[in-house]
Amino acid sequence: MKVYFDNAATTAMDDRVIEAMLPFMKNHYGNPSSVHSHGREVRTAIERARKKVAELLNATPSEIFFTSGGTEADNTALVCGIETHGIKHAITSPLEHHAVLHTLEVCEQKGNIQLHTLDVNAKGEIDLNQLEELLKKYPNALVSLMHANNEIGNLNDLQKIGSLAQEYGAFFHSDTVQTMGHYTHDLKNLPVDAIVAGGHKFHGPKGSGFLYVRKDKKIHPFIHGGAQERNMRGGTENVIGIIGIAKALELAYEDMAGHEAHIKALKKHFIEKLKAEIPGVEFNGLSGQTDKSLYTVLNVSMPPSEANSGMLLFNLDLAGISASGGSACSSGATVGSHVLRALNHNPERDSVRFSFSRFNTIEEVDYTIEKLKELYAVEA
Amino acid sequence: MKVYFDNAATTAMDDRVIEAMLPFMKNHYGNPSSVHSHGREVRTAIERARKKVAELLNATPSEIFFTSGGTEADNTALVCGIETHGIKHAITSPLEHHAVLHTLEVCEQKGNIQLHTLDVNAKGEIDLNQLEELLKKYPNALVSLMHANNEIGNLNDLQKIGSLAQEYGAFFHSDTVQTMGHYTHDLKNLPVDAIVAGGHKFHGPKGSGFLYVRKDKKIHPFIHGGAQERNMRGGTENVIGIIGIAKALELAYEDMAGHEAHIKALKKHFIEKLKAEIPGVEFNGLSGQTDKSLYTVLNVSMPPSEANSGMLLFNLDLAGISASGGSACSSGATVGSHVLRALNHNPERDSVRFSFSRFNTIEEVDYTIEKLKELYAVEA
Ligand SMILES: Cc1ncc(COP(=O)(O)O)c(C=O)c1O
Ligand SMILES: Cc1ncc(COP(=O)(O)O)c(C=O)c1O
Repeated sequence: MKVYFDNAATTAMDDRVIEAMLPFMKNHYGNPSSVHSHGREVRTAIERARKKVAELLNATPSEIFFTSGGTEADNTALVCGIETHGIKHAITSPLEHHAVLHTLEVCEQKGNIQLHTLDVNAKGEIDLNQLEELLKKYPNALVSLMHANNEIGNLNDLQKIGSLAQEYGAFFHSDTVQTMGHYTHDLKNLPVDAIVAGGHKFHGPKGSGFLYVRKDKKIHPFIHGGAQERNMRGGTENVIGIIGIAKALELAYEDMAGHEAHIKALKKHFIEKLKAEIPGVEFNGLSGQTDKSLYTVLNVSMPPSEANSGMLLFNLDLAGISASGGSACSSGATVGSHVLRALNHNPERDSVRFSFSRFNTIEEVDYTIEKLKELYAVEA
Repeated sequence: MKVYFDNAATTAMDDRVIEAMLPFMKNHYGNPSSVHSHGREVRTAIERARKKVAELLNATPSEIFFTSGGTEADNTALVCGIETHGIKHAITSPLEHHAVLHTLEVCEQKGNIQLHTLDVNAKGEIDLNQLEELLKKYPNALVSLMHANNEIGNLNDLQKIGSLAQEYGAFFHSDTVQTMGHYTHDLKNLPVDAIVAGGHKFHGPKGSGFLYVRKDKKIHPFIHGGAQERNMRGGTENVIGIIGIAKALELAYEDMAGHEAHIKALKKHFIEKLKAEIPGVEFNGLSGQTDKSLYTVLNVSMPPSEANSGMLLFNLDLAGISASGGSACSSGATVGSHVLRALNHNPERDSVRFSFSRFNTIEEVDYTIEKLKELYAVEA
């Protein structure tokens, strides 16, 4: 059996997304900036995609900018948000994705901002009182706090954070890469200034993404060149990426409740079985609490085991199970997870992130539990 | 008849490129940064693509960085070349693509550099003596001069420019978007520090590109995030884009001489017929001289005509012929071409860029000539 439980790293493309992209690989190849018929048909498709994304998020099309992925969108929001609005202080948390953390660190190194990092407790929770203190001290700051953490699944309350940000005149960016396509975002009512998406996290293509920037918080472009994306991002558009991400978001919204129910059931089953079968199992962050974490992510802290120490992911891989030790973006490197480190995770325990999609089944969960039992039986 | 003569704006994808991409849409969906089997098979494909590109260009794989297109690659080379090497002066020409010009202008506005712009004559030629004067005055500058101009096709001598740059310790970036896949680049012997590519200009996918940076001129990343591209570009890789651009380059090199011969014959035929059939026709830049310009580009300056004034592209479009008035990236906008403006192009004449690919035929040229004759017959 082959099991893919690394959907927070990336997902398989939906066949219907591929179907939507193919005509733009085979037939409609014009440059959307060209005014002739070959160009116009592609321009129309892109603007239709933008309109669809805007509709689903309750935004206006002029607030949606297509990018090459979540990372570029985060970089754009942060670097250009700071530059455009003359921001001097940024507030974030140590649990943010490197697309946010490294970008803000570079802004600080260049002397553009001073960076303030919130404390987190052992469960990865931030303290809104501390946020308010900082906002009071540094009004008109930039706040970057993610909607959900990609490793431990913790959900932040964007409504509360956004209201605080608004109160103190801050520019509020939220990295929504892990929730886009899995939760609804109602941007007329959510007090955020910028959010982002990466299409490959919800069955769209890798290398696709978008940035939402609220109308009254306009920012400068990050990539300079042609007049594409209404002068907000130079470069010939990744047409198939744009068609793909819009289709993927449409499909996600079409039956989000159904997918959530299906995946939540898998996660609950997984948690129950683990508790029953693996004595001493724990869950990192809030991922064991289904109401406080992404339904797609379960980060499991296994009891110390000599046979599996440092080898758990490898052993799972041998058993045909693909899971992750942290964010995929650094799992190729030998460094551990900066998120688990911030939570003071016990280095004697091996942690593994299982992350699910609508394509997973209960049988895959049961198979994984069996394999984990075998791996941990040796010493039991 | 439908004729696509806008190949400098973008090209149709080669079926074999699509074939190469499809397995990575349908089956191999892992994140290349993931260490499990789903990830490894994709990582292998990406590194094979990088090796192939490096081989074709006589570079090493560690000098090739995949990007979202030519524009991002240009931005990276310029912004990060300047930052990394503490460069204070940049030298360029008014005929560069906006991906270069706007990027350098922003660097100057931020106070990072002083920008020096070479003069051009009415044919769009730069003066290497003037370049040398500036290099003498501002040693260790950045020089950004394109390999070939996308509107008028003028070819620059990279060997000569690069040798001068080397002599005066300059960082030499060349925008090679229009020559990549159409001319060979032998990077062991060409004195350039950074060149760029956009896959869609040679029958690869839009939204794909790469940046070459010479080993001993390493630069910082432009997009910050995960450890992808050996820490040089954060963000989950556009896997199908990477597979596609490498395949497209491979196909281009497989029979470059054959394609060049085919397209050159079309262009020569086009020039001869125009001269014979349209009294008063002229050619912008060096595009009428086949040895001094891109074989893919012919920029035609038509004689003044009331019936076609400001309507030429539109009239061609009605006749089923897709051509361009300038670079696609700004042709959607109402502003004219900055390149023709720099050449003091007579505003009473209408100019049109015809640009060719290996998929074009001699019949399409003849059809276009017929239509032009009809359009200009009215007043003859
Ligand atoms: C000379 C030149 N440079 C840069 C670009 C930008 O490339 P892309 O649109 O792939 O980002 C283009 C084409 O659009 C070009 O012709
Ligand atoms: C929370 C979060 N932010 C940003 C990213 C970066 O997105 P992408 O890799 O599509 O650029 C990811 C995933 O890699 C993520 O999980």
